[in-house]
Amino acid sequence: MSALYLGIDVGGTNVRFGVFDGAQCVASYRTEMNLRERCAQAGEVGTAQQLVLEALASGYHRLREQCPQIDGVGVAFPGFVTADGLLRQSPNIPHLESFALEARLSEQLQVPVLLENDANAAAFGEFWALRQDHPEMQSLIYVGLGTGVGGGWIQSGRPWRGEDGAAMEIGHLIVVPGGRRCGCGNQGCLEQYASAQGLVSSYLEYTGMAADPKIIAQLAQDQNPGALRAFQTLAEHLGQALAHVVKVLDSRQIRVGGGLSAAWDCFGEELRQQLRRNMIPALQDTVEIAAGNGDDQAGMRGAALLAREVLTA
Amino acid sequence: MSALYLGIDVGGTNVRFGVFDGAQCVASYRTEMNLRERCAQAGEVGTAQQLVLEALASGYHRLREQCPQIDGVGVAFPGFVTADGLLRQSPNIPHLESFALEARLSEQLQVPVLLENDANAAAFGEFWALRQDHPEMQSLIYVGLGTGVGGGWIQSGRPWRGEDGAAMEIGHLIVVPGGRRCGCGNQGCLEQYASAQGLVSSYLEYTGMAADPKIIAQLAQDQNPGALRAFQTLAEHLGQALAHVVKVLDSRQIRVGGGLSAAWDCFGEELRQQLRRNMIPALQDTVEIAAGNGDDQAGMRGAALLAREVLTA
Repeated sequence: MSALYLGIDVGGTNVRFGVFDGAQCVASYRTEMNLRERCAQAGEVGTAQQLVLEALASGYHRLREQCPQIDGVGVAFPGFVTADGLLRQSPNIPHLESFALEARLSEQLQVPVLLENDANAAAFGEFWALRQDHPEMQSLIYVGLGTGVGGGWIQSGRPWRGEDGAAMEIGHLIVVPGGRRCGCGNQGCLEQYASAQGLVSSYLEYTGMAADPKIIAQLAQDQNPGALRAFQTLAEHLGQALAHVVKVLDSRQIRVGGGLSAAWDCFGEELRQQLRRNMIPALQDTVEIAAGNGDDQAGMRGAALLAREVLTA
Repeated sequence: MSALYLGIDVGGTNVRFGVFDGAQCVASYRTEMNLRERCAQAGEVGTAQQLVLEALASGYHRLREQCPQIDGVGVAFPGFVTADGLLRQSPNIPHLESFALEARLSEQLQVPVLLENDANAAAFGEFWALRQDHPEMQSLIYVGLGTGVGGGWIQSGRPWRGEDGAAMEIGHLIVVPGGRRCGCGNQGCLEQYASAQGLVSSYLEYTGMAADPKIIAQLAQDQNPGALRAFQTLAEHLGQALAHVVKVLDSRQIRVGGGLSAAWDCFGEELRQQLRRNMIPALQDTVEIAAGNGDDQAGMRGAALLAREVLTA
């Protein structure tokens, strides 16, 4: 029997668990749980951490009933994960500062655990899939367009976490100095233009009407001017930001994932052109950008694949 | 007797050679040679490459008369150097496409040679110096303010070259969309505001007068408004660009070198504030920026130190 790895994707309002045989999900479980609110209510670090540990352990035990042999666990977490497996902070889920989640979960479950930033985990999933056809591949830039904008970079086959676990915070690249206010305290961050919320804001600004991203995508396919312009804004600023990223990293492959990537047809071609326009000649033809796998298993699949690769290395 | 390494810094109008015992230059030689023009005149790849090889070999043999035992050679070159030691292209010196400089020079001199991008070599020199006091250090961001703006990134103790040798091309981060025209074909690149030429352009734009960077620095120290404003522009756009770089890489240490860094007092404090203003809260207090060693040995010293470390690894 081949090795099975559990991937866990921790979100602000739910936690998803999937047992993977390679890239294939063989069993899954999802718990609706507003961790953001519950950790805020917990009010202090010890209780919040305990709450997260219990949530993760309970999903693990639930799936163990179906898959008794789980060889390791990968956790994709929305926060700054340092090289030593420490969760330094989660911007979305309060009271989790300096949380040794990897070590403590492993101790509790008695199974090897790997903790990774959620965008890095999704990036590794994309990298792993691409490497099946291109075994020489070493690096990949990933951008996840969801509620926010996350980024991950695979370098020499592994996620680059940065010195403080905050590498590839590309949602906060300032693309419009003095522009829309961002939760981070600055103005004009990419996230305010290229996330689901950013798209909604643009559409509201251009039309005076509120609509959710799926409706805006449908309207854009029907050539609605306001919806087209909202996607144009997304593509323009994302292209500008990704050009910065490529000029710094010089990686050839970019994959765009996350929920909004389902609307790739509404912005993909424009994004490709914007990226090219902002690129320097020497790099113009080396970069390949495409939609990644935007399904909602991306985080847990990437975490499971990365856990398998790292924990057995 | 300790090991001696030759560092060679190849510029467009001169080539500098220094024999180093550690970071100490024990013998040096400089040849005025307009490689840019001479390679352009050569007109084709074979002749241009031969010309560069001969220039480097002649300096090596000259210094061998004083230092018979040279254990290895590090070459800092203004161009895209790939992971396999190939010079892919030099934006400043024509007709050197796909030049196996490292292998061919090593064969010609019968001594191990390491080829590195010039900004990466200078970055390694800064990293090496800092690591003497902080042995745990792993990464450093370097920006060289000279005729252009170059960048280098040391990661896990080694320069990151990128997949096409074009990583850290931060002189071409677009900081003013639609701004000053750049030689790369785009508009508003950092280089047009933060290099020596950029400073001169700003001063000309603000005052209608031409002056060289040393004069502008002197004028700024005398509180001349046009000169102060030119340095303010430099600090503003450099801070903006370095914030992008830090958000992507999450490295803690930034060193600013190159000729203009001699005028650090005219822009250093403003740069620090601009960087802080553009940073996200989670990274605001982790970054340290300071003037590097801007002396004209930086390139050859870095190349020699890197050659010693890599060739004996």
